[in-house]
Amino acid sequence: MEKEVLYLKVARIIEEQIFSETLRIGDKLPSLRSIQKLHNISLNTAKQAFLELESKSLIDSRPRSGYYVSKTSQRKFALPSISQPDILGKEKNPDGLINKIYDTLNYKDIRQFSLGIPDNSLLPIAKLNKSVIKIARNLEGSGMTIEPAQGNINLRRNIAKWALLFEGKLSEDDVVITPGTMSAIFNCLMAVTMRGDTIGVESPVYFGILQLAKSMGLNVIELPTHPVLGVDIEALKKVIHKINAVCFVSNFNNPMGSLMPDDNKRMLVEMLTYYNVPMIEDDLFGNLYFGESRPKACKVFDEAGIVMWCGGVSKVLAPGYRVGWVAPGKFKNKIISQKLLQTVSMPTLYQEVIADFMEFGGYDHHLRKFRQTLHTNCLKYQRTIEEHFPPNTKISQPQGGFFLWLELDKRLDTNELFDLAIKQKLSFAPGRMFTQHNQFNNCMRLNFALHWDDNLEHDLRRLGEFFKKVLC
Amino acid sequence: MEKEVLYLKVARIIEEQIFSETLRIGDKLPSLRSIQKLHNISLNTAKQAFLELESKSLIDSRPRSGYYVSKTSQRKFALPSISQPDILGKEKNPDGLINKIYDTLNYKDIRQFSLGIPDNSLLPIAKLNKSVIKIARNLEGSGMTIEPAQGNINLRRNIAKWALLFEGKLSEDDVVITPGTMSAIFNCLMAVTMRGDTIGVESPVYFGILQLAKSMGLNVIELPTHPVLGVDIEALKKVIHKINAVCFVSNFNNPMGSLMPDDNKRMLVEMLTYYNVPMIEDDLFGNLYFGESRPKACKVFDEAGIVMWCGGVSKVLAPGYRVGWVAPGKFKNKIISQKLLQTVSMPTLYQEVIADFMEFGGYDHHLRKFRQTLHTNCLKYQRTIEEHFPPNTKISQPQGGFFLWLELDKRLDTNELFDLAIKQKLSFAPGRMFTQHNQFNNCMRLNFALHWDDNLEHDLRRLGEFFKKVLC
Repeated sequence: MEKEVLYLKVARIIEEQIFSETLRIGDKLPSLRSIQKLHNISLNTAKQAFLELESKSLIDSRPRSGYYVSKTSQRKFALPSISQPDILGKEKNPDGLINKIYDTLNYKDIRQFSLGIPDNSLLPIAKLNKSVIKIARNLEGSGMTIEPAQGNINLRRNIAKWALLFEGKLSEDDVVITPGTMSAIFNCLMAVTMRGDTIGVESPVYFGILQLAKSMGLNVIELPTHPVLGVDIEALKKVIHKINAVCFVSNFNNPMGSLMPDDNKRMLVEMLTYYNVPMIEDDLFGNLYFGESRPKACKVFDEAGIVMWCGGVSKVLAPGYRVGWVAPGKFKNKIISQKLLQTVSMPTLYQEVIADFMEFGGYDHHLRKFRQTLHTNCLKYQRTIEEHFPPNTKISQPQGGFFLWLELDKRLDTNELFDLAIKQKLSFAPGRMFTQHNQFNNCMRLNFALHWDDNLEHDLRRLGEFFKKVLC
Repeated sequence: MEKEVLYLKVARIIEEQIFSETLRIGDKLPSLRSIQKLHNISLNTAKQAFLELESKSLIDSRPRSGYYVSKTSQRKFALPSISQPDILGKEKNPDGLINKIYDTLNYKDIRQFSLGIPDNSLLPIAKLNKSVIKIARNLEGSGMTIEPAQGNINLRRNIAKWALLFEGKLSEDDVVITPGTMSAIFNCLMAVTMRGDTIGVESPVYFGILQLAKSMGLNVIELPTHPVLGVDIEALKKVIHKINAVCFVSNFNNPMGSLMPDDNKRMLVEMLTYYNVPMIEDDLFGNLYFGESRPKACKVFDEAGIVMWCGGVSKVLAPGYRVGWVAPGKFKNKIISQKLLQTVSMPTLYQEVIADFMEFGGYDHHLRKFRQTLHTNCLKYQRTIEEHFPPNTKISQPQGGFFLWLELDKRLDTNELFDLAIKQKLSFAPGRMFTQHNQFNNCMRLNFALHWDDNLEHDLRRLGEFFKKVLC
């Protein structure tokens, strides 16, 4: 009995620290041994106290790192709405806006909340550089050999091995290497669509997909998408007879961060199989989960070979290396032959470097560390936003990836406000970038794969105050 | 007078050595100083003797290398015919044949006369490797930075500089970097054609173009092509109303090695401008000239911006690096935006390595050496072929590049004979690969960018004897 009282007492002390925000979202708790010493209790009692807090979802454990504060007493800000794109409304790609945002990426001294890739400080650059030198020295054929169009065999083998983690039963023979994930998606679209065809995507959706589709003469239907559960399958079903292919980010979609539950993934693949509609699955954020394990890909449920599972290292490891891949199911030969004709092959070096890093270089270790940083940053961003943004702000609840999606007061037009924010050396990605319709004008995407420090926190506060001021 | 007699005497001695084949095509002559000592004459007399031989086209000088035997008393084998593709005949891409040839490229112990790239022994691999290590060590942003879609600025600057050599007045701003020359051509085709359009090409033509066009849903018209002067402009004019774009290799075309005279280039561009037909100029062999200076590109005559000048390093420096480029004239913005959408950007490393090699690494020196080797090899191949192939063989007379095109006895079907030749560990590229029509069945392409030694000569002889035997 004494033991029970003791661990509950310790748990309550920590709980109070959390509620008083002495310990704040994303903070690491003292180690079990420190707790043991501090309260002069047994290690087991300390463990029980932590389990109690974990059962209340106040803290969570992260393998090999420790325990972290995972939420405060309650969530203050609501989730963004389920999107309801007006598919009969006029379409207009946000090209001008996108170009404007791109231009500001070169500005110095701007806080780049609009960035689409992780900050260099979160990437294992020194290790990768070492690997580049090592591989360059030992490259068979000195890098002159032309790789098979399917791609480097070592890299394909390692990708297949990593796919096992989420029950993706791939062999090296199922994988085709591409110069980046966008190139994988482009090749998939080339393989299964023709000018005049229509594809279905999430809404909001990564703007690159909208632009690519337009450049290929494809029509796009944006589908209602839930901020947590992803694309609305019933809504898709209603228009599926108009659709030649779909392109979804099933895990931690960009920009909303939604994660399709396994059941939805299974249902989706069954439906697409029934209607014989190929799916391009853009799974480039899948390894950046905050939960217990890597979410499955839709590919796992694909028995007919209609799912083309795309991935790459740009979002998790090395944006500049331009290494991506696709497991194209029954479209494999078509994609290999397209690749052969369009680019012949890819240089060996970076393919070998990534393969080496996956196999021997601590890819696993990097991902674990990176995920923890992202999870912590996400919680810190949410806390800071809840404290400093207008009180009617809605905010997404991503379970992975590195984007937050904010829905602000209706009166705030993020497209218009962007220029003002830049003058204050703050950037964000206006919501209108992520749709071809006239919507999301009061939304924006923020990147939290940046190095968290006082300056970043200060800038995030400034951004909140900026919007508050506009509303006054 | 005595002097005159002396130099003519010396010239005659050398001439006799050439006619008796003591000195053979491609052989280097002794240096002027050796001649001077050997015949106990003045340096000036030796020079005059060489000038005499040069005026008879028996020898030619190569800058900073010396004098070489350039022909024997007379050419024994005729030129191949001007191609007359039957454009009303049935079309059938030689896909099966191409796959068969590709497969044999992995076979060991085969003499790869069918190869489409230079042998590694002719490339400055050690220097390039050093450069890779150096650049990898010093890369700004450690290679993580995403290059602008137009490509690395240093490389663009150097390409513009080199284009000056043939009066190609380009600025760095005119050039777009692509992952290899085929990717440049693909992007050009994407920019100016749509499914169902028709392009004009040479005949025979590099099979990759035929396959790429087919994969894009384009029709191809093969145009009559002269083995020395290139595509027949009058023939093009007759069908130009059917054509949406042309794709020509104006300098040392693959496989015939033809070189369009400047006048033809000018006329061609004028005509295309008049009819507003864009031209994709594939100039990837242009730096491999055997003559005095680099031939001009059609781009030089392009005032309307309709010529998209494509090049790359795969044929001259580093096949595995996959670095190409295009100066796309008025289609520049379209091509940059396509590239951005399809592949985002390219890794910095190899772009910087090539830029470095062009600027500081002895690109010039390598090209000079490489051209000399190729010219010598070409002459040695021609001599060996004239000695050992069936007497009614016709053979091309390339002024650059590294391919010979042979037209054999009508009874010899190179497609059928390929399998037999492979059993003898000899390969070649059958003529049928280079057309969509039922022609060139008695032709073949040979690569002479291989290391010339007794074994190579022996294999070339064996190939000739092989065909002779079949004819018996």
